Amino acid sequence: MKFSEINTPAVVIDRDIVERNVHRFQEYCVQNGIALRPHIKTHKIVELARLQIATGAVGINCQKLGEAEVMAAHGLDNILITYNIIGETKLARLVTLAAKISRLSVTADSDYTLQGLSAAFTKADRPLEVLVECDTGGMRCGVQTPDEAVELAKRIAMLPGLVFGGLMTYPAKGGTSSVQAFMSSAGRSLRAIGLPCRSITSGGTPDMWQAHAAPVVSEYRVGTYIYNDRSLVLGKNCGWDDCALSVLTTVISVPATGRAIIDAGSKALSSDLMGLDGYGAIVGYPQVRIAGLSEEHGHLESPAGAKSLQLGQRLRIIPNHACVVSNLFDEVTFVRRGKIEKVTPVDARGCST
Amino acid sequence: MKFSEINTPAVVIDRDIVERNVHRFQEYCVQNGIALRPHIKTHKIVELARLQIATGAVGINCQKLGEAEVMAAHGLDNILITYNIIGETKLARLVTLAAKISRLSVTADSDYTLQGLSAAFTKADRPLEVLVECDTGGMRCGVQTPDEAVELAKRIAMLPGLVFGGLMTYPAKGGTSSVQAFMSSAGRSLRAIGLPCRSITSGGTPDMWQAHAAPVVSEYRVGTYIYNDRSLVLGKNCGWDDCALSVLTTVISVPATGRAIIDAGSKALSSDLMGLDGYGAIVGYPQVRIAGLSEEHGHLESPAGAKSLQLGQRLRIIPNHACVVSNLFDEVTFVRRGKIEKVTPVDARGCST
Repeated sequence: MKFSEINTPAVVIDRDIVERNVHRFQEYCVQNGIALRPHIKTHKIVELARLQIATGAVGINCQKLGEAEVMAAHGLDNILITYNIIGETKLARLVTLAAKISRLSVTADSDYTLQGLSAAFTKADRPLEVLVECDTGGMRCGVQTPDEAVELAKRIAMLPGLVFGGLMTYPAKGGTSSVQAFMSSAGRSLRAIGLPCRSITSGGTPDMWQAHAAPVVSEYRVGTYIYNDRSLVLGKNCGWDDCALSVLTTVISVPATGRAIIDAGSKALSSDLMGLDGYGAIVGYPQVRIAGLSEEHGHLESPAGAKSLQLGQRLRIIPNHACVVSNLFDEVTFVRRGKIEKVTPVDARGCST
Repeated sequence: MKFSEINTPAVVIDRDIVERNVHRFQEYCVQNGIALRPHIKTHKIVELARLQIATGAVGINCQKLGEAEVMAAHGLDNILITYNIIGETKLARLVTLAAKISRLSVTADSDYTLQGLSAAFTKADRPLEVLVECDTGGMRCGVQTPDEAVELAKRIAMLPGLVFGGLMTYPAKGGTSSVQAFMSSAGRSLRAIGLPCRSITSGGTPDMWQAHAAPVVSEYRVGTYIYNDRSLVLGKNCGWDDCALSVLTTVISVPATGRAIIDAGSKALSSDLMGLDGYGAIVGYPQVRIAGLSEEHGHLESPAGAKSLQLGQRLRIIPNHACVVSNLFDEVTFVRRGKIEKVTPVDARGCST
């Protein structure tokens, strides 16, 4: 298949950029003595998870059990699921998954979650490794104070079927110093009672180049770094040339001066604004704004004097948020130096449970 | 499976409400002499398309060729694709599709689109029926004036492989009178030159109860009416009891007073705000706000004094926009009077091309 024959809208992944992104942050982690555990939610592709492991990652991070099941079925082995897994059906699946791979760990931020995990793993062959999720400012899940983290760690150590694995956080953007403070305090208290952390894991692509500024962190989790996106470029985390994922689209209507319609709408780009203006950046057309999205239509606005758009013309869009775009496509097209390598399935697309 | 065993997040569809919604608007259309052509983009499920036809719809409306291919493969027959179909691969698929069903029509708003369609259908067994897409104020695709519509209709009538089918619009909300004015004018001019419209088709759930106020319209297209959603309730188009689709979710974390986290994030609810505050309505918890979404987490905020949320508790959410939710799930669960009927695939999920 030629590039011009790709059916639009389509997701195109530049393999050279992917490899450069993966290598660059792996090197940084090696230099700073940090274990790297990439989050596969961004790509959801087995082959790219394997690339990350081959480049030096210690294992992978999944958000959902279903994602971990897909990755494990394809031979990925050291998996951390950063989620409170709740409910009998899921706990039974978790036990099955744990028996299949050599290392599985999960996170918890409540005794409620721990009780379920413990009940499920009491009769399992091996105990389940559980990390305490800590809210260091991200305001999502997590215990609120180092003292609460210590209390929950003690519960893990006490409950049958479980083993304490350490502390986990997904920090607020710009929250590296808060991570250092919270984790140092909790880690100190845990060592004092003989409960050392096997891992203190933090994450987030926006602050990944600051990971070394929280030396208490032993492991770092990043997802978007493999593709990058418009939000990261505008956040000065990378350049446009570091964006490996783009959405290829066709101009299907030029109904009036200054307006054009493309065949990529919210079903291709998602409605994620990430606090930005417009729904993505059009490569080569910095003046053209993706002003609105219907499900199957993108609404472009061109100011007077902008380079004009032609019917049937193809455009490449760097989306605001790469991860959600991956989840909207069954397959992506790998390219290298403008040539198609292959079309590959998004193995763990969907997998919401 | 019991209701309590549904793995969350999950989409639950109340069949009684679906049937009532479908019947109610079908009756309105019969009473007002309007042909009803439901848009399947909302549900993307063959069985529900069949229900709509069995209830009296003249055919179905698809936005994308891929959706039409899925529906045709399952026996749906009279299909209108309201889209400019552009590019050789898609045009070849369109020819194949046209040969499989008894009636297929598409829309176009430019000579560019018509040239492609004509080239593809010149050697086909039957000509392709093409409607002119008109912009009556919706500011998406469409010719801008009745005169342009007439010009494009003449082109269709002249080009080999094509036959003129009429006029189509997707109006702005509240745009019923603009539809009447535009279509009356274009229709009059077309009759005067011997090009009568087989169909003048308008659509949109928000104004569906005003369809009779544009009597020039012979056919009406609606999608969301089958499920309804929060945007339609708050737009006073229906009541909460008319919402057939909800997202079932579990409270997985109660990290602090006034905050809770559910396992439905943007991968379940989408980021569509539709101009509303918050990402959906929680049934039975009108005071609790879905304040933010990560991909796999929904962030709930409860004011002081609100009914409290418990870990492990299940919640039902009426999403802002039902159509985009359908596209995020591989399957949905049909229920009737609180009991599970069956789990059914979202047949045309994805299908972006």
